[in-house]
Order: sequence, then C-alpha cells, then structure tokens
Amino acid sequence: MAVGHVPFPAMPALDGVRLGTTRAGIGKAGRRDLVVIELPDTASVAGVFTRNAFCAAPVQVAREHLAACRRQGQAPRYWLINTGNANAGTGAQGLDDARESCRALAAEAGLPAHRVLPFSTGVIGEALPMEALLAGITPAFAARSGQSEAWEQAAAGILTTDTQLKGASVEVPLGDRRVTLNGIAKGSGMIRPDMATMLGFVVTDAAVAPALLERLLRQAVDRSFNCITVDSDTSTNDACLLAATGQGAEIATDDEIRAFADGLEQVLVALAQAIIRDGEGATKFVTLDVVGAASRREALDVAFTVAHSPLVKTALYASDANWGRILAAVGRAPVADFDVERVTIDLDEVRLVEGGGRAPGYTEAAGSAVMAREEIGIRIDLGRGDSDARVWTSDLSHEYVSINADYRS
Amino acid sequence: MAVGHVPFPAMPALDGVRLGTTRAGIGKAGRRDLVVIELPDTASVAGVFTRNAFCAAPVQVAREHLAACRRQGQAPRYWLINTGNANAGTGAQGLDDARESCRALAAEAGLPAHRVLPFSTGVIGEALPMEALLAGITPAFAARSGQSEAWEQAAAGILTTDTQLKGASVEVPLGDRRVTLNGIAKGSGMIRPDMATMLGFVVTDAAVAPALLERLLRQAVDRSFNCITVDSDTSTNDACLLAATGQGAEIATDDEIRAFADGLEQVLVALAQAIIRDGEGATKFVTLDVVGAASRREALDVAFTVAHSPLVKTALYASDANWGRILAAVGRAPVADFDVERVTIDLDEVRLVEGGGRAPGYTEAAGSAVMAREEIGIRIDLGRGDSDARVWTSDLSHEYVSINADYRS
Repeated sequence: MAVGHVPFPAMPALDGVRLGTTRAGIGKAGRRDLVVIELPDTASVAGVFTRNAFCAAPVQVAREHLAACRRQGQAPRYWLINTGNANAGTGAQGLDDARESCRALAAEAGLPAHRVLPFSTGVIGEALPMEALLAGITPAFAARSGQSEAWEQAAAGILTTDTQLKGASVEVPLGDRRVTLNGIAKGSGMIRPDMATMLGFVVTDAAVAPALLERLLRQAVDRSFNCITVDSDTSTNDACLLAATGQGAEIATDDEIRAFADGLEQVLVALAQAIIRDGEGATKFVTLDVVGAASRREALDVAFTVAHSPLVKTALYASDANWGRILAAVGRAPVADFDVERVTIDLDEVRLVEGGGRAPGYTEAAGSAVMAREEIGIRIDLGRGDSDARVWTSDLSHEYVSINADYRS
Repeated sequence: MAVGHVPFPAMPALDGVRLGTTRAGIGKAGRRDLVVIELPDTASVAGVFTRNAFCAAPVQVAREHLAACRRQGQAPRYWLINTGNANAGTGAQGLDDARESCRALAAEAGLPAHRVLPFSTGVIGEALPMEALLAGITPAFAARSGQSEAWEQAAAGILTTDTQLKGASVEVPLGDRRVTLNGIAKGSGMIRPDMATMLGFVVTDAAVAPALLERLLRQAVDRSFNCITVDSDTSTNDACLLAATGQGAEIATDDEIRAFADGLEQVLVALAQAIIRDGEGATKFVTLDVVGAASRREALDVAFTVAHSPLVKTALYASDANWGRILAAVGRAPVADFDVERVTIDLDEVRLVEGGGRAPGYTEAAGSAVMAREEIGIRIDLGRGDSDARVWTSDLSHEYVSINADYRS
C-alpha cells in the first residue's frame, strides 16, 4: 500500500562510484539485504545522524570513523548498509560487531577500517547475525557496478517494511557545466523529525569542500527529512549521508552554491516525500502548510501537532472532513497567546475554519469532496507573523496497526 | 471493549444534591443525553477547564458564570450537561446557545442564569440542536433525585463513545466524623494531559472554603486526569468540577486537609483509571512509572513520550515484548544530557533494559509472559535524580482506528 507510484528514475553513472548488493540472509525476507557503496578517493563526505539518546552501534561507529577520516584529511571510501537487523540496544557486543563489519569490508579493499561507515536498519535489540553478514561482504564487494541498475538494486537492498523503491536524480546546470545528484532512501514507519528510521544516501559528482558540504546537507535535511512524520517515533538508527566525489564541476561561488543547494533540496524532498507516500499503511499523502506564524519553530510546532494527532490521522483515513479535529489539534499546539479568531484553515481550495469556528460558506459536501482525494493539502494561517513551515504526513489506518502489531511475528 | 470491569459503586445520598436525567434526543443514540445536577445554596464550587486555545462555547460560559458567582459571593446551583454535541467551533451562535440553555434551566429554578454552568460533549462544529435541548430541560429538572440510582443515570447520561459507566465514591474519616465524595466521569478518546475530552463531576458533603477547594482540586487533577493519555489529543471541552455542599464536616486543619486531599485524589484517580480502561479500542491497561528523574517535569515528559508512541502502543496491542520500541521512545524524550547507560526498564517483574541494551538475564519468554497480561506495569528508572511520575495509558488497536474513522458516519 502506498499513495501514488513514483517510478525509480534512471541514475546517471558517476565516475568512481560503484554499488554492490547481495542476499546475505541477515533478515528473514530472503531478499537483497547487504549493500556496499564505493566512493573515489577524491570525495568529501558529510552526514547527519539520529538525535535519539539510544543511538545504535552503527551510528556511533559511523560517527567515530567519519571523525577519524577528518582528522587525517581523508573521506570514507565505503558505506556498508545492512537491513534485517538494526544492531541497536545491543551494548558492547553491538559496537564490536559494527567495527568488525567495517574491518571485513576494509580488508577486501585494502584500507584501514575507519574508511568504512556502517549502517543498519531492522529489528532493534537482537545481535547482528555476524556469520551471515561477514559471508555477504565478499559477494557484495564483487558485485560493484556504476550502472543505473546497481543503484536500483542498492535501493532495494536497504528496504525494510517499505513497499516501494525510493530514488531521485537531479541535474543541476551551472552555466555551461552541470553536476548530477543521485539519491536513494529507505523508511516507512517510525518517521518523524530529527531523522526517524530513515536512511538516505546521496552522491554527487560535484567538488564541494567538506565544511560547505556539511552545511548544505544540514540545511536541506531541515527542509526535507526533518519535515516529515508518519507516527512521531524517532529511530535509533537514522542517518543521511552525502558524498561529493570531486570528479565533476566545483561548487564555490554564491551562484553555484545556491544552484547546488536547490538541487540537493530537490533530491532530499523527493526522497522524503517518497517515504511518506510509502508510510506504513498510508492511504493519503498530506501536505501541511502552516503560515502566518511568529517564528519557524512555532510554525513547525503547530504543523507537527496536527500531523501527529491520531484523531486527525484517522479522520484523513476515513476521508471524513472532520475539521473540528484539525481545529482542536491547532488549539492544543504549544503556542502562547493564541488568538483563535485570526486562524484560518483550508483544505485544498475549501475554507474550513474562520473566526474561531466553521467558515460561513463551508459545506460538508465541499469538504468531503476534498477529503476523498488521495493527495490533500491542509493550510493553516495563524495570523501572527511571517514565518511558515511545510510538513508532509500520512494517515492512520487499520493497516498501520496491522503492520506494527505483526512486525516481529 | 474495555480492560476489566469496574462495577458502578453505591453512591451515598448527599444532602441537598439531586440529579435529573432525560433522553432529549440531542445526539443520534436514543439514550440519556441531558443531565441536571443540583447543589444546595451552601455549596462551594471549583473547576478546572481545558487549556485548548479553541475552547468550546460551554467552557467559556461556564468560566464566565463561575466568575460571576464568585464576584457575588455565591456558588453555582446547577450543572447542566449534554452529550451528543460539543457546541465547539460554533462561534457566536454557540455562545448564544450555551447562554440560552443556562437561562432555560435557571428559569425552571427561579434563579439568574449565571447560577447555572453548562457542559457539552460530542461532535465538534455542529450547532447545538436547541429545540431538543430546551425541550429536555423540564423533564430532566423534574426527574431530580438524590438516590444512588440518580447518580448512575447521570453517569450514563454524560457518556459518548464510552462503553462503561464511570463512578467512584469514597468516605474520608475525620476523627469521629466523616465526609463523603461521590464522582462521575466520561471520556474514552482524545484523552491526554491538560484535560482531554473528559468531564468529571465530584460532589462532597464537606464544608471547604472556595480558595482551598480550588487548590485541592488542581492538585488532585495533576495526579489523576492530567496523568492519563489514550491518544495524545486534548479536547476543546474538558472540565472537572468539584462541589463541596457544606452540609457536612468542615475541612480546615492540616490533618483534615491532608485526609480530604487523599480522598479526593483517590476518587479522581479511580475515575481517571476508569477512563483509560475504557479507552477507545483499549485491550491493555498500562501503568507507566518513571522514577529517578531530575524533575517531575522530566519524569512526565519521558512518561508521555512512551505513552504516546504509536510503536509502543501497537506492540502492547500485539502483546509483543518489543522492548526496543520502549527504549527508542525513552531515547527520543526531551531530556538533556541523557546517560543511557544508567537507564533501566522493567516490565512488571522482568528487567528488560540495563546498561544501554537488553538486560543480561532477559528472555523473550519472560517478556512475552508479562505482555500477555491485560494489566501491565512499565517502570523506567532514569538514574538521574529523585523525581517521579505515574501515568496511565492504553494500547493502539484496530478497534481504535475503527472507532475514530467511523465516529461521524
């Protein structure tokens, strides 16, 4: 179940970038579950990670290795991703396992272990099945290819409860030159700001200095992956990585930076939206705009209060224009001195709420017509200022409960 | 569907207190939907109301009338409660309707309108069906009685999606005297701190000064109704009222105040727990203790982060000892400088988490045995300080989605 189908795009080859995927048998699914992504020695790499205090072993090791690379003026050469097991809540054993995985891949490539960053997603709290994982590294390494098909196989190899491949590719023109950004992602539940069970891997052929790359990644994540929510739960394993191979055009002037930042945001928003479309049990894709807020923080607070409301989400699922639930959610958002008289709420082209209550011209028929759509826009104007936020979310369905009540069984 | 059955208690008669109930035909259910509660002229009355910025018309009018009574050194004589329609999001018309309802009951009793406090619960955003409501006032007024049966009928008359009557009665010994507290409540969804779609009406024969009554009510609400959550949504209509008729013993000394406060908390906790047991679609009753917190605020933040987590709630529904989801929810709670190594998590008598991961002695069989229970205790020790909080919640089931996707259809 997913809202709309976004076909997996053709991925242009990027010099020095190869992806290898295999079925290592880590999870139960019998599908591709181990992915190696190789970057050239000329790359810069930036990453943002979960803020969950219980962050998983691979997140800790990825951070350590990234820092070690930086201290030596290097970048990681490999990303190693497994699905089927999150290696989270696994204590000292988990850290050992993540490090050993890196060592095994590094040995294949003849590099020190810190040039490999590990990523895991899947069940929390069970030990990584190291025998299967280690046995998978050689075939995954051998399968490396730079072709579009390799990107598609890698996109398949990082999925858990996802039902669709998630990829995006953008070309950014820079005068007579151009750079390419290819991205893949996974995630469909436990999705909320500050990253969620979300893995995103983006590679560009641009040449971008590490500090600039880091800043541009954080900025784009704040407008994409940090603006989506399925169920308000943040995972222990989230990570979004961005590599700039340095094989193509350099990004240095203000114009170049602006164009590149736009292209990057476009890729991350496409991936973030794909995650919401494939949200667990999703039957609706909702774009929630909060405008007229006193600050962006306030706009985000209102947007997420509405987006997390189980009553709003079940009304969306039922295609019920129960605007009272939206109004009640707005009303309980953490906003000081809220003047409800100034708030308006629109469902696509239909005004629902005005002057503290149902809008005068509103009819149930008009509201129901919008709610019947698969893709719905909710626009909330607080009438307090000039700040805004856009957040994407899905509904709460029987299927969501089934998926999450049955995940381990 | 509800977790356990708590029989409706015998309610001792309280001098000067009478309750009248009728079927006015306000909602569709064809059941008792209009309740009048009469208090003697000697009463003090305290109330706490929703903090939702979009508070409903009856909440606004109840606050106004309570203030008007206080200015004149009086107390309200009547509480008028309808179900089937919340009179929320109804603008100026809603305020007119709430005031007119009060005038109609006040006219029956030969009093000014401000001696009546109105309460409404049900669908948001539709005009109160005034014809039916006004026609019901005379029969409800005529039906007044002080007998236990009248309490039970009133408890039935305030329900919406509730499946069980909610009542509690406590006798508080004060040396050779004693006072009685009788309470009824409604609520089963849209339940979270700061009151939720919760109505509670408690009457005692004690004599308590208004300012003291207000303070004791707030204190008890903070340990009961503000410590429960079904689905994190706060309603526009919540109210909890406490009347002390003054016909019985006076509460004045420190010992008397302490004993009365304990009795009041006992009644409110019993009503709050009854709401959770009857939570929409609830199949589990969960007592969540957070201890070792640096402050009560922090303990509450962690408790509610866990209690609101859809992934924790669906795991509870599935009787799946998926402790990783509890750990992930604790990890994303808004707590600064969290040392995950010091956190322990217990499920009843079974230690789940210790030292940042699964507890050494933990077995899936032991966890599953606890999760199979209908009533489960989760205890989270943060190892940071001496503050604690206890919160009650329920699970997230298919039935919850059905109830809230079908509520208006």
